[in-house]
Amino acid sequence: MKKTDLNETRIFDEKVMKKFLIHDSAWFRIINFNIPAGKTFPVHSHELEGQLSIQVIEGEGFFLGENGAKIPAKQGEILVCDIIEPHGVEATTDIRILVTIAPPI
Amino acid sequence: MKKTDLNETRIFDEKVMKKFLIHDSAWFRIINFNIPAGKTFPVHSHELEGQLSIQVIEGEGFFLGENGAKIPAKQGEILVCDIIEPHGVEATTDIRILVTIAPPI
Repeated sequence: MKKTDLNETRIFDEKVMKKFLIHDSAWFRIINFNIPAGKTFPVHSHELEGQLSIQVIEGEGFFLGENGAKIPAKQGEILVCDIIEPHGVEATTDIRILVTIAPPI
Repeated sequence: MKKTDLNETRIFDEKVMKKFLIHDSAWFRIINFNIPAGKTFPVHSHELEGQLSIQVIEGEGFFLGENGAKIPAKQGEILVCDIIEPHGVEATTDIRILVTIAPPI
């Protein structure tokens, strides 16, 4: 058993996205990204099987998809998609997301 | 891509734990449990490979382990353990947890 406190990774840099590895194993990887207002986690994808969840733990913005798709994202919302599907996040306010990737890539 | 709003499953029953399936696939299962104050998600385990995360999204209580182990749990904290390790949650206040299991059991 391993406990992590996400309150301790509530760190923003107004210029760049911050990344904190919460857990990594053969089963899944959990990462906390803190994206400052106005910045974007660019749309990307990987040619791999598997899925990921993107949970907004604070703030609001948009989940991004292919062909310019923008889905409103706010605290408490979770997006699940295939790793192969293009995905990203745009921060309207400072936004914190928790990403779980299975299997880890 | 599939979006779910955890604000819509903020439903408590003061007598029993409520369970909401957020996502289920070959890669992982995501479940929101809402445990009313004073109640316990009993310690259990499964003879399977894999891991799970238990994230407190609201409230406080304890993560439970084997031999009566109690680890304080509050909003923003995440516990990761093997599926085979005994685990449970005790609610001090009304508590909401988000559990991700990979692979799904």
